[in-house]
Amino acid sequence: MVRIEHGSTHEAVRRHNLSVVLRQLHLQGALSRSELAARTELNRSTIKALVEQLDSLDLVVEGDLDLRGTRGRPSTMVGIRSDQVVTLAVEIAVDSIAVAVVGLGGHVLDIRRVDRGTDGAAGTDVDDMLGTIHALATELCQPDRPVVGAGVAVVGIVRRADGFVHVAPNLGWTAVPLGELVASRVVQEVLGYDVPVSVANEADLGVLAEHTRGAAQGAADVVYLSGEVGIGGGIIADGRWLTGARGYAGEIGHMPVNPDGLRCGCGGRGCWETEAGERALLRLAGDANRPDAPDAPGRRSGAGAVDEIVTAARGGDPQAGYAVGEVARWLGIGLAGLINVFDPERVVLGGMYGRAFDVLEPTLVEILKDRALTPSSGTELVPAALATAAPLVGAAELAFTPLLEQPDRVMDALMNRRSQ
Amino acid sequence: MVRIEHGSTHEAVRRHNLSVVLRQLHLQGALSRSELAARTELNRSTIKALVEQLDSLDLVVEGDLDLRGTRGRPSTMVGIRSDQVVTLAVEIAVDSIAVAVVGLGGHVLDIRRVDRGTDGAAGTDVDDMLGTIHALATELCQPDRPVVGAGVAVVGIVRRADGFVHVAPNLGWTAVPLGELVASRVVQEVLGYDVPVSVANEADLGVLAEHTRGAAQGAADVVYLSGEVGIGGGIIADGRWLTGARGYAGEIGHMPVNPDGLRCGCGGRGCWETEAGERALLRLAGDANRPDAPDAPGRRSGAGAVDEIVTAARGGDPQAGYAVGEVARWLGIGLAGLINVFDPERVVLGGMYGRAFDVLEPTLVEILKDRALTPSSGTELVPAALATAAPLVGAAELAFTPLLEQPDRVMDALMNRRSQ
Repeated sequence: MVRIEHGSTHEAVRRHNLSVVLRQLHLQGALSRSELAARTELNRSTIKALVEQLDSLDLVVEGDLDLRGTRGRPSTMVGIRSDQVVTLAVEIAVDSIAVAVVGLGGHVLDIRRVDRGTDGAAGTDVDDMLGTIHALATELCQPDRPVVGAGVAVVGIVRRADGFVHVAPNLGWTAVPLGELVASRVVQEVLGYDVPVSVANEADLGVLAEHTRGAAQGAADVVYLSGEVGIGGGIIADGRWLTGARGYAGEIGHMPVNPDGLRCGCGGRGCWETEAGERALLRLAGDANRPDAPDAPGRRSGAGAVDEIVTAARGGDPQAGYAVGEVARWLGIGLAGLINVFDPERVVLGGMYGRAFDVLEPTLVEILKDRALTPSSGTELVPAALATAAPLVGAAELAFTPLLEQPDRVMDALMNRRSQ
Repeated sequence: MVRIEHGSTHEAVRRHNLSVVLRQLHLQGALSRSELAARTELNRSTIKALVEQLDSLDLVVEGDLDLRGTRGRPSTMVGIRSDQVVTLAVEIAVDSIAVAVVGLGGHVLDIRRVDRGTDGAAGTDVDDMLGTIHALATELCQPDRPVVGAGVAVVGIVRRADGFVHVAPNLGWTAVPLGELVASRVVQEVLGYDVPVSVANEADLGVLAEHTRGAAQGAADVVYLSGEVGIGGGIIADGRWLTGARGYAGEIGHMPVNPDGLRCGCGGRGCWETEAGERALLRLAGDANRPDAPDAPGRRSGAGAVDEIVTAARGGDPQAGYAVGEVARWLGIGLAGLINVFDPERVVLGGMYGRAFDVLEPTLVEILKDRALTPSSGTELVPAALATAAPLVGAAELAFTPLLEQPDRVMDALMNRRSQ
């Protein structure tokens, strides 16, 4: 609620606009003052004052450089400073753990990833995982790059308010207070100070990442699907990230599409991911018993096996072609339902659906023509742009949210911390 | 974008707050100034000034009356005036047409409904329908009650920007520019002046109505299902009405739930509404060939037949019980998917699902326990509160939107029109 109180109205508007300008630069990297004025609808003297304030906070830099190398008289460009404040982005995937230090503008300054290896295959001990994250974060964090927030992407169902992981079947977790644990056992220990820790589901962060810096940029209504062992999903509706009442929204992998289908790990039957996920592809291709199949001991992700099947299908192998076609058919059936529900401008396909986009697309288009009730000619199907980086990029975006919303307050708190 | 421009900042904030106060009164009917201050977080002197402005616009009335009959010293209450400006709400249903005059506060001041009768059963001529709406509106409109907008609810797939009806299978319509036609052939002719005309799908307006004045009040994340011949759906996500990129969102009836199911009118197979809609219930109860079955000539809606089956099920009739149980099972299967996708705080069941809520609920709860992956204990299932009034209530809300957003501008335009 914007209050009318003499003296504070102008201040509230100014702080709102400071956030708007910083966000533009965070997304675009560098813009001239006149581009900033055009994009924000603010007048030039206001832009000047706001840029000066952001400069004094060490968040942007100004210079007579045309950073994009075009000809003509260089205009004064305002660039985001990616080296002054950073976020810590953590990804807890099925087969690996990654930690990255990400600067403003989404620049990944440093990244470490470790594979979980065979010993983790039967489930993952929470303490071991926290130890790994602690070790990676210790390697990456430097005293001269203050951290303003931490974001965690996890392959589980997460309560957004406090980062409580309700269940993460592929990690063997139930009821893990991950947000709290990362705050106390990683952030506080490694950094020596507290910063906000946000946790979200990997695919939810995938759509955030693709919307911010990937294939969904500029689209206000987006459905993002990521094909892995399960089907992850994330939704942007009317420009906003859909999280649901408790933050559990986007669990599209368990939409029932085939009541006579296979039993799913969730207790249901014929869930979308049992029909169109990685295991379905391997089963249909007759590869379920190969040593690198996802259920086989010592291996949890079948990305390599999946890609071999996709390559074989491209080469005309009939069994592989059949398997890819069936997965595309089920993918299309579920996707028709989501298009009818959301009427998205763009559908972004990630994970194995992104890697196999060329072989899936013809069947998908055909099924959607039959099944999507709403005039779907306007819905674009595109492959994801960020590939495996999406969860980390999304986690960093999430961690930057407080700074982007209240740049002056967050930076003031940082200064106070430094001077103590 | 809120701009910083000297002289205009304060004005923009004041107009925003004027809208906030009017909306509170529109939703609550009457509030004391201190309740208004508490709900809007505005200070009392601001509230006083805003209420005086709304009073001068004839939109509210102030008095020392405790409108709610509680004891003690009466405080000055501010009440919405429902008799000064009105909207025209139109409902184009499968078997009837209704027009209502609705005042601020959602008060239905007058309503006329006509059944379509047997001659309309094979489809509905657009011209005839416009003629009926014209006649009803002419009866209802009075020169001393100026109309500020018109809203139309229609059982079809509607492009929200201009009220173009892409397809309305149960009316036999394709590609009808309904918004334009109602504007030129009803509003302009009956009123003699132009007002904005908004058109939306009946179930989309159902969720708007239930969210504003019904069973979904106060919930930020809502899934609304209305069981009729089809399954209508409307979504509120994070407090906002979900419309999709083109306004076609919420077409949940055509989510595929049973690939081996019956052929659907949309061209698909085993859509949710073929398994859990009115026709499924009648078919399962063995009533599909009765003269009042929905496909029989001379009848398009099977509400009477549905209610007989539900009553029989309540009385222990085994065939009726089986039919209701099967519909509940398929309803639950689809609903599990929607709960996984949206993580709603509340699911509101309307149409036949609302009328049969007591007999459907036990099966639904059981299926959701099995199938809803996300911790669904927090998702409430409730019957709709507004019953058949929901589409008209929603259409009126839609028509009030411009007035609620910019009370002074809309009322100024009205004054100018009157003085011409």
